[in-house]
Amino acid sequence: MVIWLFSHKWRVSLLMSKLEEFHSMFYPRSVAVVGVSTNPQGWGGHAFIRRLKKVGFPGDIYAVNPKATNEVHGVKAYPSVKDIPVPPDMVIVSVPARRVPEVLEDCIAAGVKNVHIFSSGFSETQEEEGRQLEARIVEIIKRGNLRVVGPNCMGLYVPASKFTAWGAPPKGVGNMAFISQSGGHGEILSRYAQELGIYFSKIISFGNARGLQALDFLEYLAEDPDTGIIGMYLEGMSDGNRFTRLVKEINRTKPVIIWKGGLTESGARAAASHTASMAGEARIWDAFFAQTGAIRVNSLEEMADVALLFLHLKPFRGRRVLLLGGGGGNAVAMADICSRDGLTVPTLAEDTRRQLAEFIPLAGNSIRNPLDVWLVQHNLEMFRRCIEIAAADPAIDLIIADRYPHDDDMDDDGPPNFAEQSQRVDEFIVEFAKNNPFGKPLVVAVNAPTNDPNGVKAAAELRLKFALAGVPAYQSQASATRALSRFIGYHEFLAKTQEVGAEPTLASCCRS
Amino acid sequence: MVIWLFSHKWRVSLLMSKLEEFHSMFYPRSVAVVGVSTNPQGWGGHAFIRRLKKVGFPGDIYAVNPKATNEVHGVKAYPSVKDIPVPPDMVIVSVPARRVPEVLEDCIAAGVKNVHIFSSGFSETQEEEGRQLEARIVEIIKRGNLRVVGPNCMGLYVPASKFTAWGAPPKGVGNMAFISQSGGHGEILSRYAQELGIYFSKIISFGNARGLQALDFLEYLAEDPDTGIIGMYLEGMSDGNRFTRLVKEINRTKPVIIWKGGLTESGARAAASHTASMAGEARIWDAFFAQTGAIRVNSLEEMADVALLFLHLKPFRGRRVLLLGGGGGNAVAMADICSRDGLTVPTLAEDTRRQLAEFIPLAGNSIRNPLDVWLVQHNLEMFRRCIEIAAADPAIDLIIADRYPHDDDMDDDGPPNFAEQSQRVDEFIVEFAKNNPFGKPLVVAVNAPTNDPNGVKAAAELRLKFALAGVPAYQSQASATRALSRFIGYHEFLAKTQEVGAEPTLASCCRS
Repeated sequence: MVIWLFSHKWRVSLLMSKLEEFHSMFYPRSVAVVGVSTNPQGWGGHAFIRRLKKVGFPGDIYAVNPKATNEVHGVKAYPSVKDIPVPPDMVIVSVPARRVPEVLEDCIAAGVKNVHIFSSGFSETQEEEGRQLEARIVEIIKRGNLRVVGPNCMGLYVPASKFTAWGAPPKGVGNMAFISQSGGHGEILSRYAQELGIYFSKIISFGNARGLQALDFLEYLAEDPDTGIIGMYLEGMSDGNRFTRLVKEINRTKPVIIWKGGLTESGARAAASHTASMAGEARIWDAFFAQTGAIRVNSLEEMADVALLFLHLKPFRGRRVLLLGGGGGNAVAMADICSRDGLTVPTLAEDTRRQLAEFIPLAGNSIRNPLDVWLVQHNLEMFRRCIEIAAADPAIDLIIADRYPHDDDMDDDGPPNFAEQSQRVDEFIVEFAKNNPFGKPLVVAVNAPTNDPNGVKAAAELRLKFALAGVPAYQSQASATRALSRFIGYHEFLAKTQEVGAEPTLASCCRS
Repeated sequence: MVIWLFSHKWRVSLLMSKLEEFHSMFYPRSVAVVGVSTNPQGWGGHAFIRRLKKVGFPGDIYAVNPKATNEVHGVKAYPSVKDIPVPPDMVIVSVPARRVPEVLEDCIAAGVKNVHIFSSGFSETQEEEGRQLEARIVEIIKRGNLRVVGPNCMGLYVPASKFTAWGAPPKGVGNMAFISQSGGHGEILSRYAQELGIYFSKIISFGNARGLQALDFLEYLAEDPDTGIIGMYLEGMSDGNRFTRLVKEINRTKPVIIWKGGLTESGARAAASHTASMAGEARIWDAFFAQTGAIRVNSLEEMADVALLFLHLKPFRGRRVLLLGGGGGNAVAMADICSRDGLTVPTLAEDTRRQLAEFIPLAGNSIRNPLDVWLVQHNLEMFRRCIEIAAADPAIDLIIADRYPHDDDMDDDGPPNFAEQSQRVDEFIVEFAKNNPFGKPLVVAVNAPTNDPNGVKAAAELRLKFALAGVPAYQSQASATRALSRFIGYHEFLAKTQEVGAEPTLASCCRS
């Protein structure tokens, strides 16, 4: 036990230093890009430079090209990293794989510490040449004690330091971090999540991970005061035990949401071709999730769906849902979806139903729960009365409200000003959710089963309206309940492990 | 055995007569709407009349209102059904529940045979008054030998006879029928499916089913020469054995796609509130699907997704997929999704890979399968060469191609005319899929993980472009593989039961 505590403290001290150690990498004062062609097509060195300038990176930017002596793409150019007067804080390597070893040697000679290898063509090709090249760079990285992100990845994305040479232009600085073994996934999530109002502290695309590992980044983020939620996309994992211990610790204070790719036979083969990863067995990962309480998702959308809840809701644990929508078939579908995700849809108390029946006719509606009540959906006073009565029912822990995009043209059978009335209800829902009058969280499912491009667009707009106003909003009832079930499960896990309690935590070690 | 054959023949003779018996109901020459208020708000009698006129119903339309003597909403009005000079082929009843019995008595007196009871407020309210009213109308229906659709439903939707007083205005006449215990689902699918180019022979919303049952409609559709695919949304089922036998027969020649609602505890309660249905146990329905080979889905979207395949693809059975997309993380995800749905993603033969490697560099791409090949996605000549080589591989049975909406603004790192080049590839894909050169079907997944309303709209537009050109296209890879797995499973089931073979089928009975 003493040994365990010691090793634990030793790890803590390492973690603390990671924050300082990695500082110049995440917050570089200068960046050199090696391999800047003058051909402006595709991705490559020139694109990194263009994007750094576009987002207003405040530090110095250098281009490296053997033939360059003056300027390329508007920045100072040098034939080699060694020729740059002051060693840059970060070097981005964008040359063909076979030239990477010599660039790394140059970096060592120039006193550079932080390197991002964008280049691909290593072991992920599953060809002998790539494997040998990768072995060579691993040797150089170790010998030079370089801090290397990659190879075969997009590297770092840090809105606070404007070091965001890829991904969607940052709209703000937030508290979500994302560690991704896929650059494409990093690129997509940077856009997708920000559109929903989820902003980032750091996104890290680390590819083949032949220098820094997912674990190194995770240790950094554990201590990073700017990070509160951690998402991960992983294909392989080199040190499972250490990873499990670390995630278990971090997850107690910073929820860790993980998408593990390559858990099927076909997926594992694809992962080998992508980042040369050994994907691992499904049952080992099952055990990992059961042990750590980390939240398991199967796509980036699911990751953002869960993150929205951590961003906007206070912790809660009840699973008894009030479903407020319209349409009898829809009510059955909503209830089935909830049940399958481990949520329950209790019948409202007799007294609640009596109050609702005072203004909602029984014919064509149902007030038992789900509330199948078309007529209140576009009538502010009725909606307010309905939700205030139903949400007060002690059998209810949380609310899922179905909302619909409306335009008056579409609803030619509805009353005039359908769209306007509907909008007033939407605005009330935002206020209601914020005031949280019964301490019962509310989320919205935007219900628009349509293929019409304008209808699809209207639904996306309505969803964003809610999400950007701080109300978690989903593109389907299935997405909403899945995310809620995971969020509640996380808090159930925390409560359970706190009850067991005895085990010392990383946080308690730090305090002692 | 002889008895069985006899009873079977007897049922066949019933079926044959259903086609004639129901003809005046699906193809009415005149429609009367009872309960036409002059208030133009909400749904009700006036809305049925307005919609019949809007879609150009060619027969006579009458309005019935106790106070009316002349005209309402531009059609001839009578105080009672009995006052209409010639009994109408169809009467739509849209009066409060307590007045329905007297309207039914009027129908009997007037010699009306076909009645659609739109009114709700019966046993689905779970109140004594509603239950008693329902018992009364059941007695009247039996006594008067009325053909009743409902109560508590939207009724019939028949594009061929322009008897479509609800749902999306028909864009065409097609071979899909949909029997739905939810009017809302009928309304939604009528719109959703038509947007994808799936047109209908009949949609039947039958609600509480106190007159005609799902089984009656199914028997009609079995014989209906205009129906080739049958979708069903069911909450309850009154005669399970007869239903199982019937679906098993029909499914051999007309695929039956079923969404069973209310299989969870919460869902079953909601179904009771909706159509007063007893939802039945999950394991009974599991056995039903295993025995009949009917295709099980869990939403309207899934139903349309499967229907698209029956509409556009020839039967096939292989499960070995070529995945053609871009992005390494995306390739892993695609492969995982396929594996989980029982499809396999075989590595391409060495010879195939050798041919691909002649023009696709290994660095940054993967040509093993999934094909992670960004560079061919927007280059017609490379794309053509790539898909022709890969699709010819004997290890491949079918192709899923990932496509992306493009606009040049978004892809500011791409080559100029990205959108135009991408569009040329899309057009080639449509031709390739139609020519089906290796007898290997191709479907498209439109990959646009975005919340941006314009991005979402562009993705919907691209999907429609493929679907309306006859290429099954999906809003995600998960939707595509799920639909394909069900389609293939259907043909596997048929092949298996044909091998067993001994049992006489409905079709073989008819031929004898």
